Amino acid sequence: MVVGSVALDSVETPYGSVEKALGGSAVYFSVSASYFSEVGVVAVVGRDFSEEHIAFLKSKKIDLRGLKQESGLTFHWKGRYSGDLNEAETLDTQLNVFEDFRPQIPEEYQDAPFVFLANIDPELQLNVLKQVKRPKLTVCDTMNFWIEGKLKQLKEIIKRVDILIINEGEVRQLSQESNLIKAYQKISSYGPKTLVIKQGSYGALLLTPSSVFSAPAYLVERLSDPTGAGDSFAGGFAGYLAKSQDIDENELRKAVIYGSVMASFDVEDFSLGRLRALTLDEIEERFESFKRLVEF
Amino acid sequence: MVVGSVALDSVETPYGSVEKALGGSAVYFSVSASYFSEVGVVAVVGRDFSEEHIAFLKSKKIDLRGLKQESGLTFHWKGRYSGDLNEAETLDTQLNVFEDFRPQIPEEYQDAPFVFLANIDPELQLNVLKQVKRPKLTVCDTMNFWIEGKLKQLKEIIKRVDILIINEGEVRQLSQESNLIKAYQKISSYGPKTLVIKQGSYGALLLTPSSVFSAPAYLVERLSDPTGAGDSFAGGFAGYLAKSQDIDENELRKAVIYGSVMASFDVEDFSLGRLRALTLDEIEERFESFKRLVEF
Repeated sequence: MVVGSVALDSVETPYGSVEKALGGSAVYFSVSASYFSEVGVVAVVGRDFSEEHIAFLKSKKIDLRGLKQESGLTFHWKGRYSGDLNEAETLDTQLNVFEDFRPQIPEEYQDAPFVFLANIDPELQLNVLKQVKRPKLTVCDTMNFWIEGKLKQLKEIIKRVDILIINEGEVRQLSQESNLIKAYQKISSYGPKTLVIKQGSYGALLLTPSSVFSAPAYLVERLSDPTGAGDSFAGGFAGYLAKSQDIDENELRKAVIYGSVMASFDVEDFSLGRLRALTLDEIEERFESFKRLVEF
Repeated sequence: MVVGSVALDSVETPYGSVEKALGGSAVYFSVSASYFSEVGVVAVVGRDFSEEHIAFLKSKKIDLRGLKQESGLTFHWKGRYSGDLNEAETLDTQLNVFEDFRPQIPEEYQDAPFVFLANIDPELQLNVLKQVKRPKLTVCDTMNFWIEGKLKQLKEIIKRVDILIINEGEVRQLSQESNLIKAYQKISSYGPKTLVIKQGSYGALLLTPSSVFSAPAYLVERLSDPTGAGDSFAGGFAGYLAKSQDIDENELRKAVIYGSVMASFDVEDFSLGRLRALTLDEIEERFESFKRLVEF
């Protein structure tokens, strides 16, 4: 199960642009995870959310019983990436129906064994956790905005999750430590013993009580649009764990690579362009190329 | 053989500081390489360069027949690192005897099979290559200063070397390409078919005509001072290749890891503090920990 946003994004990069294209953390996550596992979405859309998008998500066998449609407009984000595409400049944000989003977990989802709390208000994340029965694994994302504005509530949610997936800048901000080993020690003292640090085009790190794992940078030749890379990563990561059911060190490492694989596909096209029609062979092939990338 | 600088560095980081400590590209390179291979230095020092430093370099079996002592003062660099230590702020540079450095290759070095041209004026690098007989492998470093100021001369030297080792920002600057795959294609069209991209704390990339290799970020817990990391990397890299004598894909990858190993030691202390007394066991142990770091 994923709780997050569904959005219509207008994005501009040096390689092109899209207008009101399908996006949002819950979408990137669920489409990415759908290649590994069943996934149910808890989110909200407006009256402008097209039947086509619904049909597409259903075609990926994504469970939409938790997707509410309201009479307002769908959450809209407009942003621009320049230079090496490592950072987005937000041009416009219209929360619309997302402003009053109070996630209600459908009964059918309440015993979901794997729960991903995408980057939303930590108070809502906390509220979600109160509605589910003991999940086997909870994974949480957040962002600088909440670290700055709702640190207390954020720490409450972090205390309750097993794995925190955030980017490097946020790790430093949250822990007030520039050294990543020390940052991990501090964050794990808040609760989660497993920390995944997303490093954009440099790959990702997995820190656990027993080891550090470094997932490589995958050089994407036809980079188009990094929107959704983090949530595609989380989808591959959590989706793989849900499929594997084992959550040992070895499987966690593989999950980070599957996350990286999905993120590397995501950035090759705008919106869900590349993720929408992958084959399992393509995914396995890229997994193998990650292996070759680090072999020595 | 290495041609580069010998310096007395004053460095300040959040973790401490040193005054006029031993440094310079030729020193970091040669001490690092000395754990793998014989190495001869071509450089210049001033009258203030202590006998102690000479004795230390000799103790590492570094050949100093190419080290000239002049009557002026030794090259002095003063810099400060802050934040995540990824970039130095230069506070003072006194070229001193280095200003008139015109490398003269001793006869005994002229058939050196492995030549490293550290980051100096590309005209001097070119002059060095004219003084050596056909080396088996030439490796070259440079920096933004020469890319901006002496691009034509730099391209002349790049054309003649086998491997270019530069950092990511310089790769983009030199190639005018932000995508690293395209940057490699462009740089290899200038000459060198092998490109090593140093990414600071994110690791390094090795690009050859047949593959991409990603060397992982090694998380250093007791980070002290990044000065010399790039040259320590180059020393481990070239030193390992000189030891191995094979320069195939596999050995190049291992060389990048040995380079990363030496750089990871370098940053653990100021000046040559950590590199000066390593054991081969420590080096092998860290090489193994790089293996575990990427295993999945």
